[in-house]
Amino acid sequence: MSHPPAPSIPTLDLRRGRAPADHARWRELCARSVGLDGPADDAARTIIADVRARGDVAVAELTRRFEGRALTPGAFELDASTRAAASAEVPEDTRAALELAARHVREFHRTQIPRSTGLERAGGATRLESRVHPLRRVAVYAPGGTAAYPSSVLMTGIPAKVAGVDEVILLTPRPSAVVLLAAELAEIDRVFAIGGAQAIAAAALGTESVPRVEKIVGPGNAYVTAAKRQVFGLCDIDSIAGPSEVLVLADAHADPELVAADLIAQAEHDTLACPVLVTDAPALRGAVREALGRQLAALPRADIARRALEDHGALALVDDRAAMIEAANDYAPEHLELLVESPDELVPRLRTSGAIFVGAWTPEAAGDYTAGPSHVLPTAGAARFASPLGVWDFVKYTSVLRLAPETLRAQARAIATLARAEGLEGHARAVERRVLDT
Amino acid sequence: MSHPPAPSIPTLDLRRGRAPADHARWRELCARSVGLDGPADDAARTIIADVRARGDVAVAELTRRFEGRALTPGAFELDASTRAAASAEVPEDTRAALELAARHVREFHRTQIPRSTGLERAGGATRLESRVHPLRRVAVYAPGGTAAYPSSVLMTGIPAKVAGVDEVILLTPRPSAVVLLAAELAEIDRVFAIGGAQAIAAAALGTESVPRVEKIVGPGNAYVTAAKRQVFGLCDIDSIAGPSEVLVLADAHADPELVAADLIAQAEHDTLACPVLVTDAPALRGAVREALGRQLAALPRADIARRALEDHGALALVDDRAAMIEAANDYAPEHLELLVESPDELVPRLRTSGAIFVGAWTPEAAGDYTAGPSHVLPTAGAARFASPLGVWDFVKYTSVLRLAPETLRAQARAIATLARAEGLEGHARAVERRVLDT
Repeated sequence: MSHPPAPSIPTLDLRRGRAPADHARWRELCARSVGLDGPADDAARTIIADVRARGDVAVAELTRRFEGRALTPGAFELDASTRAAASAEVPEDTRAALELAARHVREFHRTQIPRSTGLERAGGATRLESRVHPLRRVAVYAPGGTAAYPSSVLMTGIPAKVAGVDEVILLTPRPSAVVLLAAELAEIDRVFAIGGAQAIAAAALGTESVPRVEKIVGPGNAYVTAAKRQVFGLCDIDSIAGPSEVLVLADAHADPELVAADLIAQAEHDTLACPVLVTDAPALRGAVREALGRQLAALPRADIARRALEDHGALALVDDRAAMIEAANDYAPEHLELLVESPDELVPRLRTSGAIFVGAWTPEAAGDYTAGPSHVLPTAGAARFASPLGVWDFVKYTSVLRLAPETLRAQARAIATLARAEGLEGHARAVERRVLDT
Repeated sequence: MSHPPAPSIPTLDLRRGRAPADHARWRELCARSVGLDGPADDAARTIIADVRARGDVAVAELTRRFEGRALTPGAFELDASTRAAASAEVPEDTRAALELAARHVREFHRTQIPRSTGLERAGGATRLESRVHPLRRVAVYAPGGTAAYPSSVLMTGIPAKVAGVDEVILLTPRPSAVVLLAAELAEIDRVFAIGGAQAIAAAALGTESVPRVEKIVGPGNAYVTAAKRQVFGLCDIDSIAGPSEVLVLADAHADPELVAADLIAQAEHDTLACPVLVTDAPALRGAVREALGRQLAALPRADIARRALEDHGALALVDDRAAMIEAANDYAPEHLELLVESPDELVPRLRTSGAIFVGAWTPEAAGDYTAGPSHVLPTAGAARFASPLGVWDFVKYTSVLRLAPETLRAQARAIATLARAEGLEGHARAVERRVLDT
């Protein structure tokens, strides 16, 4: 049996004062971001305009054109018996696994439920609040076909229901039995068998058959992503999804076989995935490279994983633990694994990751399925400013102000002064009329 | 002295079973939203591409072209002595008013600081957290010229600093003395005298002189708004700003002079502002109309206010208190005033407003300046899904996962089952390698 060649994953020497070209390449990797414009933008724009003009008719026609499916608007939504029959087909071990995942995801997200906050003055007669409300209706998108991940339906739908959203709808072309079971376990209210930019447009605008939603979340292809971006403002969206990423920080104490296994688990997602090792141990780096070759030899999706490792991966060497922390913060990975001694010590200093996996017993794959936190995480450097999908995505705040007469009187002069400084006489008068009359 | 004509603000009869045309017009008002594409989009796209290609040089050149200001990159940032000298010019009463506002805004936003949350299993050996971190660097945008509102600098900058952002920068063309004083009171770290789409591009991308930021907030003109929308993904932005709005719910107990004064305070912002009254009291509606005519006669910005009232305003009559609540939820106003008996009772049922002003002693103008909550609020129906600007805008969460060996062992079979159901063998192996070896 001949082994395929070991991957030629790039090595970078990022030690201080060495290899300027490697440092430059690292800065390039850290500067990755979602594109400003994609080739799908124009197509998405046309589709949205069509759905705005023709509603259901456009959605049906675009579904036929792009997916080859003849679907009348009356059949966009799956009825309860279709959903139940499909999910009953799922093998028992898969059902049990999804149930366990759903339980943990629900339990974790319950810890995220935010409270209303505020303060009182004037003995309670003045009250200022940030009052929290769940959104009323949101859509969860799930791709169809080979990219259909039932786990993603749990990871988006459950946080929405835990937040208390009145109605969660699933948009997914050609829903599989296991996706429908996941929808059931996530307590998703309605399922629409539509996808692509036309589904995003329908949910953002509302059509006769598809209700208008306040937010759309979940990953999709380039057209879905372009459409989500364009409807932002009509409704809310989650962050723009790019390829999946893992940065593994490992030191001399790490097991190179585990490092390699975790890099491969990331790399097998697709050829654009970014599997990166940063270590201060030269010997570990060599051992990981060998382990990668060995493990890839027996992997079904080895070709995909090898491409990702070679094109978007890196095995980077830095001077010490401090440099490892700095590298992780600069890269801002979706997933950060800490395969180092005393990993807990590092956590407070790691500010820019989507999710941090602490120690050898916490593989990223556990986070993908059963651990509890949502696996929908910011990518392409967005972890610098964006959060994991969570209950916070499905609530909104309203400021509630109630001033006592004495509070308004005490502030009236300042309000009038600032209003007049900004040229807004009517603002000043609206306040003075109240305090001068009494 | 001849009075200008009373405004011909549209009246709508929204009582059940009446005036279908009025109901249709109301649905139109409720369906308002930010446009999908604006005329400024192409210009913003060109400007962003130019700043990406040429950095500071492009920013300087565009500033000369659009604003007629010759500004070298070295002069983008104001030095400390320039800032201090300018803010020392501000009259004492304005300074005192800004100081009072800053104190209240800071005090209120401190109540919004979120905590990290999480749960433990396996006696603490398994730990799942949502850990909160402030963003590292954000930009606050403030328009220049006549639209320069020092209050907005407080309302955006203070929540950012309360959140703990390391560096807050202000982007504003031609900063006035009072804007620079507001920046000082908001403890803004750096001020750049640049504006327009070129300033948004510079902050989103980073140039030699302008540091790259993780989020850009604050209102601007159409080019600024288009640019913010296009850089979303490179960095975060706040919600897309449309014209300002107030919905006043008033019943027979309300003082028509106050209702009129508050509608006018909204209407004077600009000709696109939306001042709307919804009442169940026909007599009140007539009295408000008369009061509007009287109060407008003596207002400096009467022409602007009249245009807003006539083009985007409405005096709507509904059947009862329940219909008032429904109308408010359908309209989803930026500002909602409750000039009704027992206004507190209504608050829990009002889910879609930006800010609610409870009772006659709480005019919207107080919220604009000194009450405490930020006056940067969602508009154009976005209050259905977006929150007031707050501390939550300037923090992000990171999921932190640490599994005990027994936790991973208990979940390993479910993880492997789901991974294989999704065709991801490498995920299954990354977990099995850990639990089978030990």
